[in-house]
Amino acid sequence: MDALGYYNGKWGPLDEMTVPMNDRGCYFGDGVYDAACAANGTIFALDEHIERFFNSAKLMEIKISLAKEELKKTLNEMLSKVDRGEYLVYWQATRGTGRRNHVFPASASNLWIMIKPYQIDDLYKKIKLITMEDTRFLLCNIKTLNLIPNVIASQRALEAGCQETVFHRGETVTECAHSNVHIVKNGRFITHPADNLILRGIARGHLLRACVRLNIPVDEREFTLSELFDADEVLVSSSGTLGLSADTIDGKSVGGKAPELLKKIQDEVLREFTEATGCAPAWVEQGIESINC
Amino acid sequence: MDALGYYNGKWGPLDEMTVPMNDRGCYFGDGVYDAACAANGTIFALDEHIERFFNSAKLMEIKISLAKEELKKTLNEMLSKVDRGEYLVYWQATRGTGRRNHVFPASASNLWIMIKPYQIDDLYKKIKLITMEDTRFLLCNIKTLNLIPNVIASQRALEAGCQETVFHRGETVTECAHSNVHIVKNGRFITHPADNLILRGIARGHLLRACVRLNIPVDEREFTLSELFDADEVLVSSSGTLGLSADTIDGKSVGGKAPELLKKIQDEVLREFTEATGCAPAWVEQGIESINC
Repeated sequence: MDALGYYNGKWGPLDEMTVPMNDRGCYFGDGVYDAACAANGTIFALDEHIERFFNSAKLMEIKISLAKEELKKTLNEMLSKVDRGEYLVYWQATRGTGRRNHVFPASASNLWIMIKPYQIDDLYKKIKLITMEDTRFLLCNIKTLNLIPNVIASQRALEAGCQETVFHRGETVTECAHSNVHIVKNGRFITHPADNLILRGIARGHLLRACVRLNIPVDEREFTLSELFDADEVLVSSSGTLGLSADTIDGKSVGGKAPELLKKIQDEVLREFTEATGCAPAWVEQGIESINC
Repeated sequence: MDALGYYNGKWGPLDEMTVPMNDRGCYFGDGVYDAACAANGTIFALDEHIERFFNSAKLMEIKISLAKEELKKTLNEMLSKVDRGEYLVYWQATRGTGRRNHVFPASASNLWIMIKPYQIDDLYKKIKLITMEDTRFLLCNIKTLNLIPNVIASQRALEAGCQETVFHRGETVTECAHSNVHIVKNGRFITHPADNLILRGIARGHLLRACVRLNIPVDEREFTLSELFDADEVLVSSSGTLGLSADTIDGKSVGGKAPELLKKIQDEVLREFTEATGCAPAWVEQGIESINC
C-alpha cells in the first residue's frame, strides 16, 4: 500500500477511506493534529510530536481516545503496513460525532491517521518566500484544523513561484504558513518566542538545541520585517523540511551572508535526523528531487 | 426520514452518511457554508442565503459545483424528502478532495447538505449572555468552516447557564459566537458595521429593514461594552432565532427599558417570517419549548 488511512480502528488505502459526515472535523474544523516525517520505518522525533499533540488536545479540551503509548504503537503499526520509504505520518483527533451543534458533544473523540509518501527536502537548496499580513486567530500555538488562512497563504506563495509565506503582524514577523521562520544576524540565531502567535515547532526546537550544542547564541525574541530583509541568513523550518534557507523574499535578495554558520546548523540537524532514523534522507543518498510543493 | 445528508448527489439518513477522508473540509476546515430555517416546506429567505453562500465561496476562491438556481432546486428537493416540520437546512462547499496539501487542489469542490429538525426559538423569551474577548481571525465576514473559537465560546456560555457569548475586541463589541448582537438606545437601533469583523447576518438585515419600515433610526456603527451593559434593550439575532432579547450579561441585569419598541421590532420580523413560510413557528401555535441549546 502506498498510502494509508485510519479512522477509529479501521484502516485501508487512504484514497478509499470514508468518515461519518457528522464528524465535527467536517463542519467546524473542530480538532487538533500533528505530523512527523518517517524514514526507514522510523517516525522521527515521535515522542515530541506525541507530547505536542496531547498538549494541543488538552488546550482544546479534547480527550484523546488512546493513551500516549498506545497511540505511538498504533502509528508505528500503521507505518509498518505501507511500503518502505519516506512518509509523512499525520494524525488528528476531532471532538466527536453528532448532528451539528456548537457545544461539546457527549460522544468520544475520533482518531484519524493519514500516511502518505513524502520526500524530505534537500536541506541545502535555497527557497523563495513572500510576505503577508498575519490575520489568523490568536490560538496559533495550538495545532488545530482551522487552517484556511494557512491554505490561502500557501496558495499565494505557489502563485508567486515561491515555497512559503512569511506572516507578520504589522512590523513583527511571526511564522510561516506551515513552518517557523528564523534569522541569523551577527552570529546569533533569532526566532519569535513560543507564545500564542506561533506554533512551537518541533524542528524549531531541534534548530535551537543544535545552536546550543554549536555554541551559537540564541535569542527567542520578536523581530521585524526590516530585520528579516536585513538578516545574514533566513531559515524556515518544519517537520517536513528540518531547516531550509531562503535567498529571496518578495523578489528581493536576502541572506547568503553567513553561509558557513548556516551550514554548521544544517549539518547538525541533518546528523541528528540521520542518527535517529538510521539512514540519510533520499536526496542525500540518491540526489532525488523533492516532490513537495 | 427525520434528518437527511447529501454529498455530491448522493443522499440518505444524515447519521449514516459518509464522506471521503481526503475531503479538504476534514483536515483544513477548507470550506464555506450557509444555513437557513425551513417551516411548512419553505426555506426562509433562501435567495439571500444563496447569495451570501456564493459570496463566501467567491471570497474563498471556491467554485460552487452548481449554479444558484440548481442549488436552490437541490435544497428544496432534499427538504421535500424529510417529514413536515421545522428544520435547519445547512449546506457547505469544501475546496475539493485529495491527499493533504495546503495549496489548492485540481479537483472540483464538494457540495454537502445536512437537514435536521430544528425548533425556531420563542421570539419573546429572554436569554442570558456572557462576554469573551474576540480572538478569531480577521475573515469573520466569510462563513467558513474554521469555527473552533465559536465552538469554545458556545461551550463557555452553556457552562455558565447562558445561551450565547458576546465577543468583543478590547472595548468594542463585535458579534456573538453564532449570532449578531445589537442594542436599542434612546429609540435608535445600533449594530456593528458589516465589515470583516462580523458576519453580515441575514436576520440582522431583516431586523435593520424592519426598523426602517417602523421608522426606527438605525446606526451601523461600533459600540462598546459599556454601551452594551447600559443599553435600553440588547438583541441577538441569527437565522435560527430571528431576534431574541437578553436580560442578563455576565450575570448583570441588562435591557428591559424599551419593551414596547422591542416588541414592535420582534412582531415585524415574526410577521415577515410567517408571511413568507405561510405559517407561524410551532412555539406560536403550540407553545412548544425550544429544543435548541
